[in-house]
Amino acid sequence: MINDYQQYLNEVDLLIKDHLNKNDVSSKVKESSLYSISAGGKKIRPLLLFKTLKALNFPLELGVPAAATIEMIHTYSLIHDDLPAMDNDDYRRGKLTNHKVYGEATAILAGDNLLTESIHLLSHANYNDAIKINLIQLITNAAGQFGMISGQMNDILSANKEIDYKTLENIHRYKTGKLIQAPVVAAAMIAGASNDIINNLNDFSGELGLLFQIKDDLLDVQGTQEELGKSVGTDEKNQTTTYVSLFGVEGAMDLLKEKETETKRLLYKLKDDIDIIHLEDIISIVVNRTK
Amino acid sequence: MINDYQQYLNEVDLLIKDHLNKNDVSSKVKESSLYSISAGGKKIRPLLLFKTLKALNFPLELGVPAAATIEMIHTYSLIHDDLPAMDNDDYRRGKLTNHKVYGEATAILAGDNLLTESIHLLSHANYNDAIKINLIQLITNAAGQFGMISGQMNDILSANKEIDYKTLENIHRYKTGKLIQAPVVAAAMIAGASNDIINNLNDFSGELGLLFQIKDDLLDVQGTQEELGKSVGTDEKNQTTTYVSLFGVEGAMDLLKEKETETKRLLYKLKDDIDIIHLEDIISIVVNRTK
Repeated sequence: MINDYQQYLNEVDLLIKDHLNKNDVSSKVKESSLYSISAGGKKIRPLLLFKTLKALNFPLELGVPAAATIEMIHTYSLIHDDLPAMDNDDYRRGKLTNHKVYGEATAILAGDNLLTESIHLLSHANYNDAIKINLIQLITNAAGQFGMISGQMNDILSANKEIDYKTLENIHRYKTGKLIQAPVVAAAMIAGASNDIINNLNDFSGELGLLFQIKDDLLDVQGTQEELGKSVGTDEKNQTTTYVSLFGVEGAMDLLKEKETETKRLLYKLKDDIDIIHLEDIISIVVNRTK
Repeated sequence: MINDYQQYLNEVDLLIKDHLNKNDVSSKVKESSLYSISAGGKKIRPLLLFKTLKALNFPLELGVPAAATIEMIHTYSLIHDDLPAMDNDDYRRGKLTNHKVYGEATAILAGDNLLTESIHLLSHANYNDAIKINLIQLITNAAGQFGMISGQMNDILSANKEIDYKTLENIHRYKTGKLIQAPVVAAAMIAGASNDIINNLNDFSGELGLLFQIKDDLLDVQGTQEELGKSVGTDEKNQTTTYVSLFGVEGAMDLLKEKETETKRLLYKLKDDIDIIHLEDIISIVVNRTK
């Protein structure tokens, strides 16, 4: 079912590459930015955006620039998270991390670049000004101090500390959740959905983000580096509190089931307004993925 | 003459602090972001924005959000430039650098945060949508791969290499120049100036950026750490090619004079359109500053 969307995921990729290839002021910063973009990745956020547009019966084509922006921000966050001063990871998406290839200074700049250019791309996209501003407000809110960055900070501060379930979930609501919610709400804004629908989609995708993270924690102990394209067992190595360290593998799998039910419940609230089957798909993709 | 503008510079400061203080998702990332903002600095970019508004006879108040955005981006770039992987500086604006106080991980996130929140703040500012989009296009262009970041990258790549005057000037056109041009052009956009005026202001401020950098290089050998609030002699220590290393102190002072004349010539082209005296002021401020 992901194949129906492949065309649009490819367009996202092309748009990002075209944008970054537009100039030659510095071939090095361009090259290192393109390196991480070209590593591919699951593209779960763009897929979410397109599936939400589909559920709203709106042309998928119109999601491309917003999906590109969010994917660029996701990629920048991975480059910075992988830095020696942060998680110090050597592999990402099956390739050496950015700083392993280009050095730390260039990796920091490549991350800064993808963040800046993500908004630059969006500001030139073919949406009307009101939608562009709504999208920029949404995405910078999700990515900044009110979202991902604060989640990442709190995650770092919790290292080697015992934290409880509520604290852990709150970290993930920001660190992972906000940038999972952003493409869903962005699609609703692009499609001109009502505030009610937007609010319900926001709640649904908030739970989906938590579901995504529980699965991520399970994959870190159950997956292989070959499948995941990144090191496994890093949570234990870094003494990170995870759903698995709190509840064990069995407990985390139970929690995954519970959260899946809750995510579906929130989605079903939208059943009279949108074509929810397209978003049910994504729940299975998140729960059953092996990478 | 800077005193007429102090009220507005204070408002910029307040707006940034209010924005960052709005939430408590992570007190640490907020605190470290505020630390670097509160270090003050010369506020030359906000001043340029207000002086251009004055020259265009437009209310200064309306420049506050755009000036705040540009100052936040400038501050983020300093935090990242100071990192051990980059220039590895211990002092900035008379205080310990961000990573010296908060550690590298937090400093990277504080920089990311100020960049993201700068656009978030602007996207909520009290301009109409068309002006907001124009400003976001201008500022992300100046700060990203088409501007500051590529200049910074090329600067790093030129370390320990012999580069000629043309190459050096090209680095500075991007690394320093673009974010000196941005507030001048932003003011013109806010004031609804004609394309002709915007183009002439763009040329003038491009030269002003180079003038600023020549003075910066001179201060690195002639200034004191006490006055500058940052380490001096770092260019020589880092074997950075500068106008001083290329031409000597006397030669760089001659170049400063030459560039001052050229900057004035470009400004005078605007004498029938705007009240250029306010921008003549800024040329003297740049040339005669001791920090």
